[in-house]
Amino acid sequence: MKHTIETKTYYFDTDAEGVVYYANYLKWMEMGRTELLESKGINLIELREKEGLVFPVKNLSISYHAPAKLYDAVIIETELEGIKGVRFPFKQRILKKQGQILLVEGTLELAAVDRASLKPKRLPDYLKKLDLKN
Amino acid sequence: MKHTIETKTYYFDTDAEGVVYYANYLKWMEMGRTELLESKGINLIELREKEGLVFPVKNLSISYHAPAKLYDAVIIETELEGIKGVRFPFKQRILKKQGQILLVEGTLELAAVDRASLKPKRLPDYLKKLDLKN
Amino acid sequence: MKHTIETKTYYFDTDAEGVVYYANYLKWMEMGRTELLESKGINLIELREKEGLVFPVKNLSISYHAPAKLYDAVIIETELEGIKGVRFPFKQRILKKQGQILLVEGTLELAAVDRASLKPKRLPDYLKKLDLKN
Amino acid sequence: MKHTIETKTYYFDTDAEGVVYYANYLKWMEMGRTELLESKGINLIELREKEGLVFPVKNLSISYHAPAKLYDAVIIETELEGIKGVRFPFKQRILKKQGQILLVEGTLELAAVDRASLKPKRLPDYLKKLDLKN
Repeated sequence: MKHTIETKTYYFDTDAEGVVYYANYLKWMEMGRTELLESKGINLIELREKEGLVFPVKNLSISYHAPAKLYDAVIIETELEGIKGVRFPFKQRILKKQGQILLVEGTLELAAVDRASLKPKRLPDYLKKLDLKN
Repeated sequence: MKHTIETKTYYFDTDAEGVVYYANYLKWMEMGRTELLESKGINLIELREKEGLVFPVKNLSISYHAPAKLYDAVIIETELEGIKGVRFPFKQRILKKQGQILLVEGTLELAAVDRASLKPKRLPDYLKKLDLKN
Repeated sequence: MKHTIETKTYYFDTDAEGVVYYANYLKWMEMGRTELLESKGINLIELREKEGLVFPVKNLSISYHAPAKLYDAVIIETELEGIKGVRFPFKQRILKKQGQILLVEGTLELAAVDRASLKPKRLPDYLKKLDLKN
Repeated sequence: MKHTIETKTYYFDTDAEGVVYYANYLKWMEMGRTELLESKGINLIELREKEGLVFPVKNLSISYHAPAKLYDAVIIETELEGIKGVRFPFKQRILKKQGQILLVEGTLELAAVDRASLKPKRLPDYLKKLDLKN
């Protein structure tokens, strides 16, 4: 199931070509993943502060089809294909709201790691039982 | 041939886990590609302002092995594997200087496009003749 | 009259001390000013593309009282004290939503300038007549 | 005494007006202050990790005179006017290297605080004895 949020392009997102800078789409993708997980009832602050569990990106693959421009309304679509051990594979797409034009799409894999050691860390049981695909 | 530059991590590169934010490595990668091209005698400002030629990233694939931390000296290695039509395929690696530890590596493909239309655009002849691999 | 928007802190806003990086509050302030002007019926895209009119910050003075942290909900308050010639003086405050704690406050002055020359530029009449204080 | 570093504008510094985004000059100012302190023999990593001492900005006042553009070489000048208790008052200026044109200038005050509590914290004696003005 696709989770969807909306945002808008400000000057701080753009670069001298009048378009969103290629690294800044990754910020919107962080927003999308965060809001998907929160919408599933996952309390990221609690996992971080009580369990010492955080979720850095381990690898990503992104295609840039068309650019967002200043003050464009954009849609960030996020899908999580279940949890594989400590890995969270996401699919994300960014669309221009007007005309629903695909701008950027990518796959990103996150890992559950211990906040102090940055080593892989088992998930709490309740998290493994969540239905994150739907 | 590998082109190499060095930089250093400041607070503005880092995030609340005490490491460089995943999107910020892409800024260092822009620095590395820019300096490689300039070192080959390519005048990016002139190409942009006189020829209307710019080089956005079309796709990228990145693996994160270990994080850079505050004030770490880092090395950015950049290789360009020739030019394929209007496409510029790069390999880039970021290492922690102390111990030469591999932090991040990726492949990125740029395209020569017209600055106004953002459509693919032929390269000037002198650019095609440059030996960018060595 | 105070104009108010809400946002939330993500990893990309924070730095290695676990708090929002001092320059990133200025991004939230841009969001606040943009949304105030749009709420008054000012079409910033049209002013930019049809009139060549843009509004860079000319000076600012900011005090940092307390930091926003990861995933904090924050409120951005923006006030515009009328227009003085081509100058737009703003007061802005950022509060932590929970407890309404003042985090950052500042005064910022913007100028209407021509997009190409960056020189001061007269405002269109309809803009001068707008009641921006209330 | 003025401390000076040089850097260069990349796409990630710029915005859709083709100039450096107003908040990004503050990143260059962080670079300038960091390098001044390191040049005086202050080990910021050691102060942070062994003494728990960090130096957030408490207030700043900045004037924007002219913008830096893509690939401009810029100079960051930093002066520290001694230490006042736990306060470090800085003057900083950013110039375009070509023509030595003043772009941005400001005063910024930092405070020595405890990393965990963010409360003001006494400086180690050796730091108080340093001649930071010259």
